Order: sequence, then structure tokens, then C-alpha cells
Amino acid sequence: MSLREEMRQLALQAKHAARELALLAAEEKNACLLAMATAIEDQRDAIKAANLQDLGAAQNSGMAPAMLERLKLDEKRIAGMAKGLREVAALPDPVGRVLEERTRPNGLKLRKISTPLGVVVIIYESRPNVTADAASLCLKAGSATILRGGKEALHSNRVITEVMVEAGQRQLKSFPKHAIQLVQTTDREAIKELLSFPEYVDLCMPRGGENLIRAVTECSKVPVIKHYKGVCHVYIDAKADPKMAEQIALNAKVQRPSVCNAMETLLVHEAIAPVILPELGARLGEYNVELRTDAKSAEFLTTFKGKTKPAEEQDWSTEYNDYILNLKLVGSLQEAINHINQHGSAHSDSIVTSDAGNAETFLRQVDSATVYWNASTRFTDGGEFGMGAEIGISTDKIGARGPMGLNELTSYKWLGYGSGQIRT
Amino acid sequence: MSLREEMRQLALQAKHAARELALLAAEEKNACLLAMATAIEDQRDAIKAANLQDLGAAQNSGMAPAMLERLKLDEKRIAGMAKGLREVAALPDPVGRVLEERTRPNGLKLRKISTPLGVVVIIYESRPNVTADAASLCLKAGSATILRGGKEALHSNRVITEVMVEAGQRQLKSFPKHAIQLVQTTDREAIKELLSFPEYVDLCMPRGGENLIRAVTECSKVPVIKHYKGVCHVYIDAKADPKMAEQIALNAKVQRPSVCNAMETLLVHEAIAPVILPELGARLGEYNVELRTDAKSAEFLTTFKGKTKPAEEQDWSTEYNDYILNLKLVGSLQEAINHINQHGSAHSDSIVTSDAGNAETFLRQVDSATVYWNASTRFTDGGEFGMGAEIGISTDKIGARGPMGLNELTSYKWLGYGSGQIRT
Repeated sequence: MSLREEMRQLALQAKHAARELALLAAEEKNACLLAMATAIEDQRDAIKAANLQDLGAAQNSGMAPAMLERLKLDEKRIAGMAKGLREVAALPDPVGRVLEERTRPNGLKLRKISTPLGVVVIIYESRPNVTADAASLCLKAGSATILRGGKEALHSNRVITEVMVEAGQRQLKSFPKHAIQLVQTTDREAIKELLSFPEYVDLCMPRGGENLIRAVTECSKVPVIKHYKGVCHVYIDAKADPKMAEQIALNAKVQRPSVCNAMETLLVHEAIAPVILPELGARLGEYNVELRTDAKSAEFLTTFKGKTKPAEEQDWSTEYNDYILNLKLVGSLQEAINHINQHGSAHSDSIVTSDAGNAETFLRQVDSATVYWNASTRFTDGGEFGMGAEIGISTDKIGARGPMGLNELTSYKWLGYGSGQIRT
Repeated sequence: MSLREEMRQLALQAKHAARELALLAAEEKNACLLAMATAIEDQRDAIKAANLQDLGAAQNSGMAPAMLERLKLDEKRIAGMAKGLREVAALPDPVGRVLEERTRPNGLKLRKISTPLGVVVIIYESRPNVTADAASLCLKAGSATILRGGKEALHSNRVITEVMVEAGQRQLKSFPKHAIQLVQTTDREAIKELLSFPEYVDLCMPRGGENLIRAVTECSKVPVIKHYKGVCHVYIDAKADPKMAEQIALNAKVQRPSVCNAMETLLVHEAIAPVILPELGARLGEYNVELRTDAKSAEFLTTFKGKTKPAEEQDWSTEYNDYILNLKLVGSLQEAINHINQHGSAHSDSIVTSDAGNAETFLRQVDSATVYWNASTRFTDGGEFGMGAEIGISTDKIGARGPMGLNELTSYKWLGYGSGQIRT
């Protein structure tokens, strides 16, 4: 069988499974998710054995320790997967929600309800626990999943997928065995082939580095929802409360610098820079943050003891994911907004100000998925938004935007309830 | 300048215009739309002159009379364009609607609000009045438009676009001159180039024949929302009211056969066929409807006098847009649902039944954008849905599905209102 035909089969099987999943009641899906959680715990030894195989091969190939750490499935991570499945089971069903309702003058009642998407392809890198997370969210949303994990995690992902599907089928006779499928080949062309069947695949969500996501987006014939990177900003307005500004900026940078909603660039209004920067500089220095500055800001860093150098043009659109921060003074609110719209990644940006007018201008004009007033950018997260779980974050404008929970994994349809209405 | 560079310029100009449009108040947009309506009336002679140029060239090239008719802009159609603009001005603003609101335990208030999409490319065929319709809806939704009409309508489209932009700028100093742009070249490669800039273009909506739409979708690197065709079904259940069934089936087929929401296939439960088909056959015959039948249905067409022949496999997925109807008997509700999901185009399908359980099964399991119970498929239309105007119909699952009005031309963003919240 050619690679293309293999991928077509996978996609077609998923399409059939999706039709069956769409018929399951919420309680049936939840019972399956709980059974899967128990099965993952019961079969932890098999999961660990497969993971050791992956770890061994990765070690032999010289994988860096940080990557090995991501690949590893220990007791705690396996328990975490099971816990995640139970949490998804406990969430409200995202399918069948009434989103809109209206009755037309002719008596035709229209109802817009949420529906499953159908077939969702998830592409991700090394963490094998993503396998259980992603598949469980798609299942709860009534969709079939095709998973493509990193090749270094293939054995781990295979066992996790098998354990989940078997548990689903034991729990529920009508549970479709192709509800959760793993791309078994490590051929790099597989994704391109799989994403060439829009008649079967409804959505692709790539998660990982910018290069992976660009490659997927470039080749895909099916809709892709993604964010390339998180170049997030905090803008400290002339009318900011200095203490609040310092806390938000510090939190956005150092609370967890490795994630996409951490700040990469701090913009400070010139008028408040003399008040803000000496104190904030000292605090950033305590965390060994490296600063990349424009010419004007450097002079206010009187108390900053750490590494600093002039920012280069490409720095303003770089996601460091590290203890590095761009710093720039701006002469106006508008300059800050323009900088963000030009250099940012439309992910998460925040203004600190006590001026409501300035805040509203910023909230309106910054063209990003999530825009904050007097809060850290770090809140852009499905859990923090009260979505219960998160499958990803989108900076796209068609379909979901911002954090994506279960509701963002659904589509909708219109139902028309008539009593014989015809069009005249 | 290369074609690619020309298209890049067009897209970049639209992106800048979109930023400015997003700042306009509803009243400003409406005032511009009203000024454009007046300008179209005032400059009807210039519009007719340009249209005559197009008509002359089309006639010389041997265009069919029906196509010439579509291309023609007479007094009535010009008045219709102006009226359309005024109607769009009168509609509620789709931008800034609060779609969701919640306050998190930490006090962070989250608000999900509708936003403009940004830059929308509309591709369409011969009717030049679409130019004004599409541009006005996008403008009202705060987006910049790039229009690509049929090459045979280029002069007409150019004048309409110019008249609208000039009127907008006379009305409002800050009206961006690239808010509405027309692709000036007739080079077929222009679309491919234009749709290769996802960093500038947010959405493409192709309207027209299936081949055009497939070609656009195939080459596009930006999201495309479309429907390829409308293969719509009416299913007459065993428990249907015969009179209602007959009226709905007749209406769905003959009230306007040329449109996408007209019925192409009638499915009838075997048990009710002897009651339904003789009478319905007679009525269809009055409209000279040609029938393409399965073996079983033919025997009940005792009173049908018109043309009939056995349906071939591809007929079941053909959009005739004509007085032709596929007819098939089914042994069960499930067979009807399976037929629709297999052969349909996920556009509009209807069940006629007095059995609520059967209706709910149909509404749930038919995987189409719009599904009706006891109503004609012909209601799938922005106007009939109370959307006020329609830019198109989508059978996609990401982004808008079903009829698309102004609200469906928006995206959203999340606003976070804090009081100094940081993540711990």
C-alpha cells in the first residue's frame, strides 16, 4: 500500500468513526473516558516499558537531557494522564448547546446548536502525555482523532492509544475502534498526504515549534488552527500605578519564561520610565534577566546589574522563551499599539494604566487574540479562562481564537423546526 | 512590477486599510454607506456607460444571452444596488458585540467580543451588482475587501468600486482609500498570488461554479469559506402528513430550481410511497420536471406524464439547478440519513414527518449545515434567517456554517479586565 493510500485509509476510517461518535450520549462518552483513565493506571507497567524503549533509543541517538525529560513517562506523569481523563469526563458536554434561537415571522423556529467537528488531526512533538490529553478532549467533543506525535515517542504513543481504544470498546460496545488513531509511520511525507483529504479531515492542529507549524500550514489542504509563537507585550502607560506595573511586568516575564504567554517585550511610556525602570530593573536583575534595549531606555537602567545589549531589529519579533527581555520606551499610547501590531504575534498583550480611555483604545486597537488591562499576559490559558482544559491556543481569526477548550473544538449547525412552511 | 509584487501591494494596502476601518464608529461606517448609495444613483450614467462597454465586448465574443442578462446593469439594477447599500447601513453593527462574559475567582473579568476579520477577498463571476453588495457587507463588518469579479465585468466593477471609495472619502476624511479594491488584472494567476499572503489576507470567499471554487480552494494559503454545491434532499418519512409532504417537496423543487437550496433528490419511505407518489408525480409533471428514478419508485409514478429515466450513480450527487429531480424509495429513516450523508453536499436537507423521534434522529444525524423538520429546504438564506443580508452560504465546519450574514463576517477576541492580577 502506498503512503498516500495508507493515509487515505486512516482518514476514511476516522470519518466513519466520527459519524458513530456523534451519536454517543454524553454519559456514554464520559463512561468511556473514565474506563480509559482506569486502564491507563492498570497498564502503567506496559506504558513504562514502551516508554523505556523510546528513552533508550533517544539516549543512544544523543538526545539532550531536557528533551529526554520531556519524553519520560514516570508514575507521576502516568497518574497525571489518568487524572486528566477524569477531569475531561467531569466537564460539561460541549455538543448540543443551543447557541442561538429565533422564530421567524412565518413561524419557522431556527436553532443554532453546537456539533462535533468530525475528524481532527493533532500534530505534536515529544511529550507522550499529550496523546491522552488531546485524544480525550476530541473524544469528549464528539470527534475522531488522528494523532501524529514525535517519532522518538512512537512506542509510548502506540501503547497509550491502544490502551485507550481497548478500554473504550470494553466499556461500550458501539465505541468505534478508529475513534483514536495514531499515524504509525515516521515518514515525514505522511502529514502532507494525510492533510490532502479535506473530504475526510475537518481540522488540523499542529502544536510545537514555529518551523513545524509553518511546514504543516504550508502543505495542508485542510483548515489549520494554530499559533506560530507568542511574542507578548506589556505596555506600561504614563498613567500606570508603578507598583502594579512592576508586579505585572515581572510576573509576565519570570513566572514561567518558557511558555508562549510569557512577555518578550516591555514597552514603557517615556514619562513614567524614570519612576518605573530603576526599581523594575533591579527586580529583573535578581532573576538574571538579560535585557535588549533601545537607546533611550538604557539610561534609566541605573540599578540594573545584569547583562544588557542593544536590541537588533529581529529581536522585536523574537520569542525567547527564556530569561531575556526586549525593552523599549515609547512616546505615546499609539506608538505602543503600533509597535505591538507590527512586531507582535497577535497572542497576548497587556496595558497597565489607570486611565480608562487609554485602556479602551488599547483593548480595541491591539489586534491580538487576547488583550488585557491591568493583568499579566500569563492568564492566556484554557484553565485560567475557566475552560476546564485546553487543547491549544489560536492566533487565527477563522474558527477559534485565543485559548481553545472543549467548546472551541465544536462546529455548529442550524436546525429549522417547521409546521409545513414553504417559500413563496 | 511582477504580478506577485502587484498582488502583495494590493494585500498590504488592504491590511493597512483594515486597521483604519476597525477604528470607525458604527455611525461613521453607516454614513459612508449612505453616501455611497447616493453616489451610485448620481453616477448611474457613468456606471451604465462602463457596463455598455462590457456588454459590447461580451456580445462580440459570443456570450450566451442568459449570461449577457446577468452582466447587464440597467436602471432597476443600479437602483437595487443603492437600495442594498441603504439596507446594510440600517442593520445593527456586527462589531463589538459581547459574545460571552465571565469573572474568574481571582477577579479577572473576561469578555469575548466580536471583531472585524481584517482583509476579505471575494471572488465571483459575472454579476457586477455583487461588487456593491459584497463590499458594503465587508465594510459594515469593519473589514477591507479585495474584489475579483469576472473579467467580462471589469469596466463595470471598476466604476462601481471607484464611485463607492470616492463617496466614502468625501463623506469621511479618515475613510481609507484602499478599503475596497478591485483586482485590475485579468491574469488567471493573480488569485493564486493574492491568496499566497496569509500574513495580509484573513479570508477568501469564492462564489460561483464548483470548478471555480475548487480551483480557488486548491491554490489558497489563506482560509477559504465556501460551498461547492447544493445537493439538497427532502425525505418523506412513513409518518408524514401527505399534503404537507407534497407541498414541501414541490416547493423545494420548483419554486426556484436554479438556486443552491433547491431540492435535487427526493427520498420517500416505501410505506408512504403509494400514498404520496401518484399525486406528487402529477404535480411535478405540471411543472415539466424530469425524474431520474431508482427501480422501486418507478412503479408508483402511475400518473406522471413527463420525462423519466433510471438514475445513474453520479446523478445522486449532481446539482442540476434545473427542473430535474432524483427520486428514490428508502426502507427506513436510517437509509435516508445514510444516503444524504453519503451523496449530499452538507447544505440543506429536510425531513417531513409527524413523528418527533424520527425528526430528532434526522436533525441530529444528518451532517449538514442546515437541517429542517417539516419545512422547505428553500429557507436556507440570510434574508429568510433574519440576518438582514447574505454574503454567502458555507458548508464548512471551521468558521461560519450555513447562511452568512454580517455576524458571520466577524471574528472575536478576548478582553481581560484586571486590577493588578498576576499568575502564581
